[in-house]
Amino acid sequence: MKPLILVTNDDGVTAPGIRKLVNIAKKFGDVIVVAPDSPQSGMGHAITISKPLRLDKTDFHGEIESYQCSGTPVDCVKLAVDIVLHRKPDLLVSGINHGSNASINVIYSGTMSAAVEGAIEGIPSIGFSLCDYSYHADFDQAEDFVELIIKNTLEKGLPKGTLLNVNIPKLKKEEIAGIKICRQALAKWQENFVEREDPNGRKYFWLTGKFVNDDKGEDTDEWALANQFISVVPTQFDLTDHHSIPFINQWDWK
Amino acid sequence: MKPLILVTNDDGVTAPGIRKLVNIAKKFGDVIVVAPDSPQSGMGHAITISKPLRLDKTDFHGEIESYQCSGTPVDCVKLAVDIVLHRKPDLLVSGINHGSNASINVIYSGTMSAAVEGAIEGIPSIGFSLCDYSYHADFDQAEDFVELIIKNTLEKGLPKGTLLNVNIPKLKKEEIAGIKICRQALAKWQENFVEREDPNGRKYFWLTGKFVNDDKGEDTDEWALANQFISVVPTQFDLTDHHSIPFINQWDWK
Repeated sequence: MKPLILVTNDDGVTAPGIRKLVNIAKKFGDVIVVAPDSPQSGMGHAITISKPLRLDKTDFHGEIESYQCSGTPVDCVKLAVDIVLHRKPDLLVSGINHGSNASINVIYSGTMSAAVEGAIEGIPSIGFSLCDYSYHADFDQAEDFVELIIKNTLEKGLPKGTLLNVNIPKLKKEEIAGIKICRQALAKWQENFVEREDPNGRKYFWLTGKFVNDDKGEDTDEWALANQFISVVPTQFDLTDHHSIPFINQWDWK
Repeated sequence: MKPLILVTNDDGVTAPGIRKLVNIAKKFGDVIVVAPDSPQSGMGHAITISKPLRLDKTDFHGEIESYQCSGTPVDCVKLAVDIVLHRKPDLLVSGINHGSNASINVIYSGTMSAAVEGAIEGIPSIGFSLCDYSYHADFDQAEDFVELIIKNTLEKGLPKGTLLNVNIPKLKKEEIAGIKICRQALAKWQENFVEREDPNGRKYFWLTGKFVNDDKGEDTDEWALANQFISVVPTQFDLTDHHSIPFINQWDWK
């Protein structure tokens, strides 16, 4: 039986990145798309609990069975599993995101949160991102590598609860140095809100920021990307800081 | 100098839970509130990048300097640090959430994501949740314990990048067995969408789910709560599954 592959993203069901991913995924199995009906970048692991969700079939991806959903990327995965598929797919691929989800971006990213939700559901999951925010980013250069990563994942399987965070540098195919298995760099966004006045004279703020990476390790995703590698970070969703448990057990709890 | 304490939440600036937390926090230092202007439950680590944010002073918390923000809990923390405080506070407390954020809920929770954002910013941060979803939940029972946890955190400090996820069982003060340092239980929500028709005859879905915990460990937050303890999970934001790196390095990457 051919593998069943769920494709989603956070840039919306019509984004060029998901079109490329659908075209790659269909070489490996039966593809079903459930993706947001509008861009959902920066939605993190948000779910929609206080309002209804719409789920409509779309012919946007031609012969591929496709649905657009009014909710977040995580909502899409939940709806796909419960309503559309009625069974666990063999693979979930999310993306290809227009922009980096390396380092701390994993936590803000709708693309990666969809993949994390897949892993929570027990589905082998991969999030793909190209380090180019442009709508017209060139996804062709990365095609062979995306194929290789999907092939490996289907053949070897992932440990339970583990997913992959794949980031692709904005380079020509022949410039890409290869694939590097990495850890998430310890970096952050230093926010810098732009303050303006709206046409009614009322103040508003707009989030901007500078990415600050003081992590000099050569085993990080940021290092890999800066050195022309595709970064692959095995990712998980146990946020426990296990090593701190003994320290906090020393506190006076009476 | 008195500690500067930032208070936020995801149930909104007027929720009873944040009122209680403000009243506790002000015993320890100078308090500033920056919280959402409306409920933001389930927003996870969402940030607002494609539209402007409003930030308005409110007198809701009396003498305490308070702001309401149109964005997500994480937006509130970013605005607080960049626009309101202009310096890193000594402590961030988020909550008290109306409802559990134990186990996998940490990842969907706006309350916890605000605290995670605090930790990313280098602020010692604590998220507090009471396992009672009611608006009229009784936050008084937990007051002494919340105080003890804040006192310990200010005195001992937290390891860099570590925050605390505190969940309080819905019990009378004298029924609470004490405080237990735990790991996040490996549990999940099994979603079950309700399918209905709107007044125009169009289908919609509403997310509901059943919490499924097959993790029998007696070192988990769910075990602690079920056994009348307050659970404290040291939490971090490196999602790398470090132990899987050698396994994935064995794959054929040519």
